[in-house]
Amino acid sequence: MELEATKPFLSIVGEANTKHSQAQLLAYSYDATANFQAKPDLVLSPSSTEEIADIVKLCEKSQIPIISRGSGTNLAAGTVPTQGGVVILFNNMKKILELDEENLTVTVQPGVITQDLCLFVEKHGLFYPPDPSSMKISTIGGNVSENSGGLRGLKYGVTKDYVKAMTVVMPNGEIMKLGGKLAKDVAGYDLLSLMVGAEGTLGIITEITLKLIPLPAIKKTGIAYFNSLEDAAKTVSAIIANKIIPVTLEFMDKGTIHAVEDFMSIGLPRDAEAMLLMEQDGTEEQVARDIQTMIGIAEQQGATSAILATSEKQAEELKTGRRVALSALSRKRPTTILEDATVPRSQIATMVKAIQEIAAKYNVQINTFGHAGDGNLHPTCLTDARDKEEMERVEHALDEIFHTAIELGGTITGEHGVGEMKSPYLEWKLGTAGIDLMKHIKQAVDPLNIMNPGKVFAKETKKRLVVHSG
Amino acid sequence: MELEATKPFLSIVGEANTKHSQAQLLAYSYDATANFQAKPDLVLSPSSTEEIADIVKLCEKSQIPIISRGSGTNLAAGTVPTQGGVVILFNNMKKILELDEENLTVTVQPGVITQDLCLFVEKHGLFYPPDPSSMKISTIGGNVSENSGGLRGLKYGVTKDYVKAMTVVMPNGEIMKLGGKLAKDVAGYDLLSLMVGAEGTLGIITEITLKLIPLPAIKKTGIAYFNSLEDAAKTVSAIIANKIIPVTLEFMDKGTIHAVEDFMSIGLPRDAEAMLLMEQDGTEEQVARDIQTMIGIAEQQGATSAILATSEKQAEELKTGRRVALSALSRKRPTTILEDATVPRSQIATMVKAIQEIAAKYNVQINTFGHAGDGNLHPTCLTDARDKEEMERVEHALDEIFHTAIELGGTITGEHGVGEMKSPYLEWKLGTAGIDLMKHIKQAVDPLNIMNPGKVFAKETKKRLVVHSG
Repeated sequence: MELEATKPFLSIVGEANTKHSQAQLLAYSYDATANFQAKPDLVLSPSSTEEIADIVKLCEKSQIPIISRGSGTNLAAGTVPTQGGVVILFNNMKKILELDEENLTVTVQPGVITQDLCLFVEKHGLFYPPDPSSMKISTIGGNVSENSGGLRGLKYGVTKDYVKAMTVVMPNGEIMKLGGKLAKDVAGYDLLSLMVGAEGTLGIITEITLKLIPLPAIKKTGIAYFNSLEDAAKTVSAIIANKIIPVTLEFMDKGTIHAVEDFMSIGLPRDAEAMLLMEQDGTEEQVARDIQTMIGIAEQQGATSAILATSEKQAEELKTGRRVALSALSRKRPTTILEDATVPRSQIATMVKAIQEIAAKYNVQINTFGHAGDGNLHPTCLTDARDKEEMERVEHALDEIFHTAIELGGTITGEHGVGEMKSPYLEWKLGTAGIDLMKHIKQAVDPLNIMNPGKVFAKETKKRLVVHSG
Repeated sequence: MELEATKPFLSIVGEANTKHSQAQLLAYSYDATANFQAKPDLVLSPSSTEEIADIVKLCEKSQIPIISRGSGTNLAAGTVPTQGGVVILFNNMKKILELDEENLTVTVQPGVITQDLCLFVEKHGLFYPPDPSSMKISTIGGNVSENSGGLRGLKYGVTKDYVKAMTVVMPNGEIMKLGGKLAKDVAGYDLLSLMVGAEGTLGIITEITLKLIPLPAIKKTGIAYFNSLEDAAKTVSAIIANKIIPVTLEFMDKGTIHAVEDFMSIGLPRDAEAMLLMEQDGTEEQVARDIQTMIGIAEQQGATSAILATSEKQAEELKTGRRVALSALSRKRPTTILEDATVPRSQIATMVKAIQEIAAKYNVQINTFGHAGDGNLHPTCLTDARDKEEMERVEHALDEIFHTAIELGGTITGEHGVGEMKSPYLEWKLGTAGIDLMKHIKQAVDPLNIMNPGKVFAKETKKRLVVHSG
């Protein structure tokens, strides 16, 4: 962008809140996704909804792309400015605006860090359940735009289940308020849910009111190790069939266990083929009962060991181990591609087995961890982007993983979003009718296509592979 | 519709599944809403998604309105064929298709009666929480199209929180499948939530997969009576502030108590100004603790009596009493207009008081009952549609009630829908930007406006009254 062209933007946010040197632009040319990079023209840190509305109006006039970006932990290239344009940061909009203990809501600016919010409300005896693994650095605005999940999704749902109201700057610069501090509201179409998870393609969210729930009295963690992935998967199904909905039911395979142990040395057994982390919260009696039942079920299903975490410290270590799985794995090879294929819970064993077979077939290294209770798996491919031949095999393997997930009644992304990376696969899940409906909505809301262009909607849809299921 | 024009429709569903005599058409000319009536041209009972797709294609070709109708319990004229056309019934599509105990889902056709579904899954130890007061006759399809709430909304949410997947026939006759048996799915815009609560204006829902949860072990009911509405409202706030989220926290005012007692004779005290019904479910210990705490809170807040229901039978009687409130009230005067204004929970006392003042100001009879824990109140106006002068006062009073709800951060409808009756007020809640966005979506999805035309979108928006608050 020519210096002259940046001036109207500078006059909105001020020089101190503008980044336009090449070094600065480089820093915002990527997110947590491998293999996607593109420099923006300008990076702005507005301080209010009104400033954002003014920025959007300028962008609309000149048809400049706008990419809103939280902490850039996106794993589907959703926050990479692949068509250039203006990146909007929220580092000047990170206030917790109001805690309403009577209506059990908290109202925040988008730049608030997820974990900060969780800790803040917990001090008041309240609970904000969505906990993406990146919660220490991710922002609430990013979480809402991506409809982030997390470890506690099984029992408590995902971000969209907690969004009660928002302020959005629409692509024409208009400021719209949606929802309210209401337990029930059926006044018109569910525009609020439409904005949640729209990945910044329909507007810029500038204020969010979230629902809170009372903080459970206690929580406890159990751990089970298995000689086979199937036994772990069967344990998951049996727990649910026993009418227990734990807070978390997390899964790691052998490769992930090794990577985490290499990284953290917390004493995970290297001979285990699979591990389940089982957490329950609630009242003392309920938690004690559920954890004992889950440990019993794991034993019945052939766990080599199934025990209660000996202390809160050990439980925290184990959970941290699970949360850092991606970082731990990513140290192993130059390039890490984390996927997010999700299947109905009943299909976890089938899916994990299929992933292993696909990895063997294409001779690529794929480790799997994830939210087993949700059927939300994270097959993680360790590779090297510089090796073209290997990358081709990786791409075939990932294609086949997505294909298998869809075949099993699943989806191409459970919680990471479509972004640009997964856009060629979206039609596999939605069909042409679904894609057409989405396009109609996008066209109606953002006719100039300035809001995060190139994301969600693919230039070209991938052909489905002919897969011989086995 | 000329006999000749009906023939193609008859050839789809057969003569036995077609109603076209004047007497038959009259039966489908109204729903549960006062003062709205219009005859359809044809009433069809298709047996499959494919038959519905064929019907829709015919309607598209000739631009004939299509109104899908469950049991016609709609309270906002949402199922009245005000522009004529074809009414689609689901009496041939009322099968429970699959119970999936591993994924905790049930898949049904739209015509299944809500209560039948609840009882069916309870036999398997599972729980479908949404329980609109009309659940004995309402259909799941209607519930989904209206995003119905109910008494258990406070703890368990509303219908949209349980819809996991659906099949929809789009306005061009295309069959679209949305969602899946998935705990997490962020593949594209949330089209599923867009269809839930769209009141049949975007497509016809022909199959639904619902999430289930484990059936709570036990439930208990407490009752509290008060000398003032304020004390009852303060009790509601205090319960939530005590970090208890009961299943139900239902409210009835004096007039409603009298009407129910006249109707059922279950021993409700006629001198009470207000009554709260407090139900909790969960484990034995939790329920016992919560109910005792709630009774204690009610006493602190000045309840004249606060006790545990003496038996399951008494608890059921009290809940039935609350569920029949509308029927009981509607016996009192020729015309009953049930409203659905909803406010943040913290504003219940203010809202209830405002309703009383508005009723006095316009000299109309309004009794209030509803879901106090949700802030979802049902001010019910007992009047006589034949008395033009009184009806004018009623209309002014209702306008002012909606206006007050919006002023308090609330909405014009919490669970009944917009339909045709409340469409002139929708802009008060959504603003012109919100209405425009909805119109864009409607236009993109249903360009010929054949899906339930005249509903949700108003011909003319009501001017807001100048209200002197206080």
